[in-house]
Amino acid sequence: MKNLIVGQSGGPTSVINSSLAGVIKKALESEKIDKVYGMINGIEGFMNENIISLEKFNDENTLKLLRQTPSSYLGSCRKKLPEDDEEFYEKLFSLFKKYDIGYFLYIGGNDSMDTVKKVSAYAKKIGYDIIVAGIPKTIDNDLALTDHTPGFGSAAKFIANSIRQLTMDAKAYKMKSIVIVETMGRNAGWLTAAAALANSKKVHSVDIILLPEVVFDLDKFIEKVKDVMSKKDFTVIAVSEGIKDKDGKYISEITSTLKNDGFNHANLGGAGKIIENLLKQHLTFKSRTIEFSTLQRCFAQGISLCDYEEAFRAGYEGTSHALSGNTGFMAGFARTSENPYKCEVKFYDVDVIANVEKKIPDDMISEDKMYVTQKFIDYAKPLINGEPDLIYNDGLIDFEIL
Amino acid sequence: MKNLIVGQSGGPTSVINSSLAGVIKKALESEKIDKVYGMINGIEGFMNENIISLEKFNDENTLKLLRQTPSSYLGSCRKKLPEDDEEFYEKLFSLFKKYDIGYFLYIGGNDSMDTVKKVSAYAKKIGYDIIVAGIPKTIDNDLALTDHTPGFGSAAKFIANSIRQLTMDAKAYKMKSIVIVETMGRNAGWLTAAAALANSKKVHSVDIILLPEVVFDLDKFIEKVKDVMSKKDFTVIAVSEGIKDKDGKYISEITSTLKNDGFNHANLGGAGKIIENLLKQHLTFKSRTIEFSTLQRCFAQGISLCDYEEAFRAGYEGTSHALSGNTGFMAGFARTSENPYKCEVKFYDVDVIANVEKKIPDDMISEDKMYVTQKFIDYAKPLINGEPDLIYNDGLIDFEIL
Repeated sequence: MKNLIVGQSGGPTSVINSSLAGVIKKALESEKIDKVYGMINGIEGFMNENIISLEKFNDENTLKLLRQTPSSYLGSCRKKLPEDDEEFYEKLFSLFKKYDIGYFLYIGGNDSMDTVKKVSAYAKKIGYDIIVAGIPKTIDNDLALTDHTPGFGSAAKFIANSIRQLTMDAKAYKMKSIVIVETMGRNAGWLTAAAALANSKKVHSVDIILLPEVVFDLDKFIEKVKDVMSKKDFTVIAVSEGIKDKDGKYISEITSTLKNDGFNHANLGGAGKIIENLLKQHLTFKSRTIEFSTLQRCFAQGISLCDYEEAFRAGYEGTSHALSGNTGFMAGFARTSENPYKCEVKFYDVDVIANVEKKIPDDMISEDKMYVTQKFIDYAKPLINGEPDLIYNDGLIDFEIL
Repeated sequence: MKNLIVGQSGGPTSVINSSLAGVIKKALESEKIDKVYGMINGIEGFMNENIISLEKFNDENTLKLLRQTPSSYLGSCRKKLPEDDEEFYEKLFSLFKKYDIGYFLYIGGNDSMDTVKKVSAYAKKIGYDIIVAGIPKTIDNDLALTDHTPGFGSAAKFIANSIRQLTMDAKAYKMKSIVIVETMGRNAGWLTAAAALANSKKVHSVDIILLPEVVFDLDKFIEKVKDVMSKKDFTVIAVSEGIKDKDGKYISEITSTLKNDGFNHANLGGAGKIIENLLKQHLTFKSRTIEFSTLQRCFAQGISLCDYEEAFRAGYEGTSHALSGNTGFMAGFARTSENPYKCEVKFYDVDVIANVEKKIPDDMISEDKMYVTQKFIDYAKPLINGEPDLIYNDGLIDFEIL
C-alpha cells in the first residue's frame, strides 16, 4: 500500500474540481492506496510540505459539492520545474519518500504536463518507484493529441450564452451598434471561435471572429465591418486577447506594458478596447467592449454537463490507469462517434503533450480568415451540451472551500 | 370590448419579459379585451404605428419561453414625452382611437412612469376614456413607494454569484490581490450594495462598497484598503459606475467625455478602472477590474425565482387592476412578512413615482460609509432566492424573438 497525492496547477477552470473529484473517488475506492493527499498550491506547496488529507470526500454529498466548486479547490501555482537542479529534485523525491507517495497525479494544462514529464523522467533516471500522471485541464483547449480538454466546453458555453444574451440586450434598441467581446486564449483561438456557437436560426449576431492564429489586418477588418453593418443593425465581433499584427506583436502591446508570469507568457489584455478604438477612428457606430475576464473560466453556474462529466471521467479513469501501473501519461479524449457524439478516455505519452500548443487547424477557419467553418461548429457544439443540477444555498451557488 | 396595448421602455432586464407575459396572459384571459397588441420599441414605435398582435402567446409553451427571454422582447426606447406639445398628444390619441385602445400598459422604470403620468394626465384633460398603467422594471431598484422593483433581484443575484465565483478564482493563487467590480446604478447604489450578498460564513471577500449615495473620499478609501489588506490576502471592492467626488463630479468624468441619452443622464462607465489606477498609485498589490457591463441586466441564466415570479405577478395583477377600471397607477410590492418573506402586489399613484429616484437609506449604510448594514442584507437576501427551470436548446438558453 502506497499513498497518492494530487495537485492542481495553472489557471483555474469551472470543472477542474470535477477532475479532482474523479481522482479522489477512484483513489478512495482502491485497495492499492492507503492515504489520499492533496497538495496546497500545487508542487510549490508540496515542496513546503503543505498538504492535506482528502478523506472527507468519502461522503457523496461532499464530493458532489466539490464537483461544482468553481476554480481550483486545492489552490494553484505557476511553478516551472527546473531543467537541471539536482538539489530541487532530491528534495522533491525525499518528500515522496517521507510521505510514502506511490502515485503523483497532476491536473493542469501543457505547462503542468511539463511538470509531469520532468518528475516522471527524474524518477526513471534514479530508478525511483513512483507513478506520475497528468489529468488535462485548460479552457484554452490547446493540448496536443486529445480531442479536447476539460474546461473548454464550459468556458465556450459561458461565452456563447453570454453573447446570445448580450445580443438580445443590444437588439432592444433601434440603433446601429457593435459589441466587441474579448476572450482569453493567448495563442490558440478555440475560445474566441466558440463565439460562433451563439448563432442560431433564430438569431445570428456574431459575424467576425479575430483569432490569434491569423495575422490581424486592419484594412480587411474595417472593410468587413463596413460590409456587415451595411446589411444589418447589430453585430458582435469576438476578439482573442492574443491577436497579433503583421510584425508579430500583440496588438495590446500598443498601449500596455507587458508583464511576465513564471512561464514568460505576456500577461495580455485590452485587445477588445484597442479594436473598439480602431473602429471609432474608422466608423461612426456606437460600440461597446465586454471583457469576459476571469468569469469565463470560473462561472460554474453555466457549466456544460458534457464537460462536467468528462472532467470527472478524466480524473477517475486516469487514476484507474495509473493504479494499473502505467506512468508518464496524460488522460485525454478520443472521439469515437460524431452523431451521436461519443468520446472515450485514452492515454497519451506526456512527453508529446508537454509544452506543445494545439492551434485551430486551417480547415476550421473560414476563407476570409475572420470566421470559422462548419467543421469547427460540428466539433465544438456537443462539448457545450447539457446542464448539470447544481446545489444552491439562499440563491447562491454552494461550494467546498479549504 | 376594447383593445389593449403594451410596451417596454428603458434599459432591459432579465425578467422584463416575465412582466410582459403576465400582462399578455391576463389580457388574453379577459372578456373585456378584444385584441392584444404590443408596441415595437415602446411609444416611439407606436407613434409610427409599429405594432404587432400578441395572440400567439395563447400557447403556454410559447409564453414560458417568452418569460425566460432576456432583454425586452418588444424592443425598447428612451423617448421622453414632451411637456406641452399638443400636436404630439393629438397624434398619440388619434392612434388610440384608430386602434380602439382602451388599455395602455407600459413596463419600465421611473422615466417610463413619466410617460404613464403624462399620457394619463392628457387623457384626463381631454376626457378621453382610456386606462393608463405602469408595470415596474428596473435593475436599479430606484422606484419610489414599492418595496423593490422587478429586475433588481436577478441583477443582484448575478452580481453576488459572479463575485462569489471570481473570489474562488482569485483565491487559487497564493498572492495578495484585489478585484474591483464595477456595477450599474447611476445615482442609487442598490446593485453595488448587492455585492455584499456574496459574503457568507464560508467565504467573506467583499470588504468595501463604494456607493453613489456617499461622497468618494480618496484618503479614507486608501486607508481602508490598506487596513483590509493588512489582515487578508484578497479582497473585492464593489464600485458603482456613478460614484462622485466631493465636488459632485462623477469620478469617471476625469477620463471620459460624457455623452447624453435622451434623459440627460450622463452615459457613465469606467469608475472601476479609475479606482484601479488610483490604487496602483498608492499600493503595490496586483489588481484587476471587472465590469459586469450589460451582462448584469440580461443574464437570464442566472435569474432569481423570486424575481421571475414577482415580475410576472406585477404584470398579471397590474393588468387585472387596470381591467377593473383603475388608471394612473403603477403596480408595486408591499412586504407583508419578513420571515418567511412575503410580498403582495399593491397599486401606487404614478404621479408620486415618476421621475423620483429612491436611494439607499442611511440605516442601510455602514458607519464608515463604505459598506452596508445587516438591514440591507435582510432586505435584499430574499429577492435573489430560488432558480427557475429554464429551457435550453443544444446547450444554449432558448428564447422568443420578434
